[in-house]
Amino acid sequence: MKIINIGILGLGVVGSGVVRILQNHHGDFLRDQEIDLRLIAVSSRRDTQARELGLLDIYSPDTASVTANPRIDVVLELMGGIDKAYECVKAALESGKSVVTANKALIATHGRELMRLAGEHAAEIAFEASVGGGIPIIGPLRHTLASNRILSVMGIVNGTTNYMLGRMSDHGLDYASALAEAQALGYAEADPTADVEGLDAAAKIAILSMIAFNTDIRLDQVKTEGISKITTTDIQAAAEAGYTLKLLAIAQRQPTGIDIRVHPTMIKRSHPLASVSGVFNAIYVVGDAVGETMFYGRGAGADPTASSVVGDLIELARHRAYQETIAQPVWDTEGLPILDDSVLESTFYLRLPVMDKPGTLAASATIFADLGISIASMVQHAATGQEAELIYFTHQAPVAAVMTALDRLIISGILTSPASCIYTIAGDH
Amino acid sequence: MKIINIGILGLGVVGSGVVRILQNHHGDFLRDQEIDLRLIAVSSRRDTQARELGLLDIYSPDTASVTANPRIDVVLELMGGIDKAYECVKAALESGKSVVTANKALIATHGRELMRLAGEHAAEIAFEASVGGGIPIIGPLRHTLASNRILSVMGIVNGTTNYMLGRMSDHGLDYASALAEAQALGYAEADPTADVEGLDAAAKIAILSMIAFNTDIRLDQVKTEGISKITTTDIQAAAEAGYTLKLLAIAQRQPTGIDIRVHPTMIKRSHPLASVSGVFNAIYVVGDAVGETMFYGRGAGADPTASSVVGDLIELARHRAYQETIAQPVWDTEGLPILDDSVLESTFYLRLPVMDKPGTLAASATIFADLGISIASMVQHAATGQEAELIYFTHQAPVAAVMTALDRLIISGILTSPASCIYTIAGDH
Repeated sequence: MKIINIGILGLGVVGSGVVRILQNHHGDFLRDQEIDLRLIAVSSRRDTQARELGLLDIYSPDTASVTANPRIDVVLELMGGIDKAYECVKAALESGKSVVTANKALIATHGRELMRLAGEHAAEIAFEASVGGGIPIIGPLRHTLASNRILSVMGIVNGTTNYMLGRMSDHGLDYASALAEAQALGYAEADPTADVEGLDAAAKIAILSMIAFNTDIRLDQVKTEGISKITTTDIQAAAEAGYTLKLLAIAQRQPTGIDIRVHPTMIKRSHPLASVSGVFNAIYVVGDAVGETMFYGRGAGADPTASSVVGDLIELARHRAYQETIAQPVWDTEGLPILDDSVLESTFYLRLPVMDKPGTLAASATIFADLGISIASMVQHAATGQEAELIYFTHQAPVAAVMTALDRLIISGILTSPASCIYTIAGDH
Repeated sequence: MKIINIGILGLGVVGSGVVRILQNHHGDFLRDQEIDLRLIAVSSRRDTQARELGLLDIYSPDTASVTANPRIDVVLELMGGIDKAYECVKAALESGKSVVTANKALIATHGRELMRLAGEHAAEIAFEASVGGGIPIIGPLRHTLASNRILSVMGIVNGTTNYMLGRMSDHGLDYASALAEAQALGYAEADPTADVEGLDAAAKIAILSMIAFNTDIRLDQVKTEGISKITTTDIQAAAEAGYTLKLLAIAQRQPTGIDIRVHPTMIKRSHPLASVSGVFNAIYVVGDAVGETMFYGRGAGADPTASSVVGDLIELARHRAYQETIAQPVWDTEGLPILDDSVLESTFYLRLPVMDKPGTLAASATIFADLGISIASMVQHAATGQEAELIYFTHQAPVAAVMTALDRLIISGILTSPASCIYTIAGDH
């Protein structure tokens, strides 16, 4: 039985959740893992949480009380934000401490450097909690699935937007009402930008892709489109055609590089991701040997996130306790290029509000035909007043061609208001 | 970069799949894991596969060429069966080799002893492929979710029966036709007993439970009921009430011990397990911190199973390469008792074929009432000829009371043919 000393930076909801697990399960970890996990220092801006958790005697507002404490073996970085967290994690790693973090922005921004630093100081950095909350996904990708060439990773990795789209779909709420409700329930923040514009999901798919494709990916290389322009009209049209609208984070290995993006996506209802509802998250991984797999669970919340943090902690503590020098994963070994739209293809949904008069259908169809975009299905919705709606589902088509088609539709003058254009994904698997 | 020498016992479909991965991805593992995985000995009864795979020069029919080869670091046991496999794995571990096995029967029967043996000889034994084929589930339970007290593990872990039930449900096939079709497709064996009677699923839930509940569980402690008595009538009744019929393996932590069993189960359609179709498997795990999680993928087949075998191999090879002495998981630390029906409760579906005459409904309802079984819903199906069907869904009720009710129904003489009694599970989560 070995003693491992722990320090925590940040005592917000996740930090408090971690402390509760460490308090409630101390005896279990002792018994099952033969490790005595001891929390010996905590730091946060204010002492309120430390007081509530009965940790005032090991509290300091100074982060150095944790990062520079020579007795500490593993630091848990749960403060959030980038700059200060980066400084603290760097200091901890440089003094040979291992680090567990739940900070997706930190890893998506500085992951590669922190990995390298850890390796140089015989330390480790783990970040299971940075993607998918309580869902084990980083572990499986790094271990069990290491036998595979990963072909694609797709995920519903933002619970806020998944909740909102579900409410828009099932109860007909418009975007503003769904957002207001999510904010009232505490699912969305006062400034919801990171969630609704897809930035949170972009950081997560960047992290997953780094591991899945052995390639360093910068957050700004992830093409990102949020849900703020989604209307109930499009959600209903999706439902009528057998699709569910989700904010999907997608990364795929292509012959010439990695296709990585976040955008609203119509998913055929028979696809396992289509039935992931509410605040649940799921990550769908395809490997060359394993085929399709999916990992499902709670993507956020104090306890699920704390579950992943403590899972990582136990792993790193075992490595420390048994003096194992774990080889760091080698990063960027493939170093694949990130592809842009000019070489990518997808299937699409296009909704064109047009004047209900002879020739508009032919005019739109001709634009698609001229660009070599093949149509899988088309319906014209019953006209209301002088307007009609043409709804197209395309076969696989170059993204650039579809964007050109949208431009030509505007120029043609047949649109009465902006067209909707949404990526689609089939259910076949 | 380190060299790890590998020996394989058994070159059937899984063994061949493993060889293919090792051949195709040798360079990837060298680059990403910094390990040179070298296959230096293979043994199988006949040399046919070795010849096809170009491995004749390292082939021997004698298993000792692998288990007693001092150059070998890790042995892959892919021969199946229990007795001979047990001998070989024991010999390998005793000579300090680590072992990867896909053999669920072996682990469910001798798991605890083999773990102990491994620990005594500074070796490891890994068996991710023994449950859920390519699905990472043992790894997540042992690592990321080690932070949790696991409350329950439920799984669709037999693809053969899941395929058959799907065909019976979606296409109205009867049991015999579904079985014949599964056999024709190679999903079911000529002697389908292990699959259709739930024995395969029982071995898998025993293994999952050993890890989830830190308790040694013998295969014969798993109460097991197969699908051979399932009729399309019950499947249709399930569908009408919003349920899908699955062969479910269930293990739950109860206040006084572990409830573990395999039986046909009606799962409410809103439960994530209900939509797991065809030969896919899924394991649903609830932990006290993480909440609900689910792991989904291909539960069988050469490549998915080989994916898990090689995943384990890479892990054990890394441990060897970097001279890490990984502490074995401590087994049976909780040592919980296995509960029998006398203390368990569940919700049930009961279908009673009765004479269509006054008093039968009252008579059956009185039997339930007398035993304190509360009814959630009841429908009487339109009579055909002189017969009618009473379909009851109960609230949570003692299993023993429901079994007594079935006895009393027989004695009462109101049944015209045997009643169906099937466990149900709600979709709320």
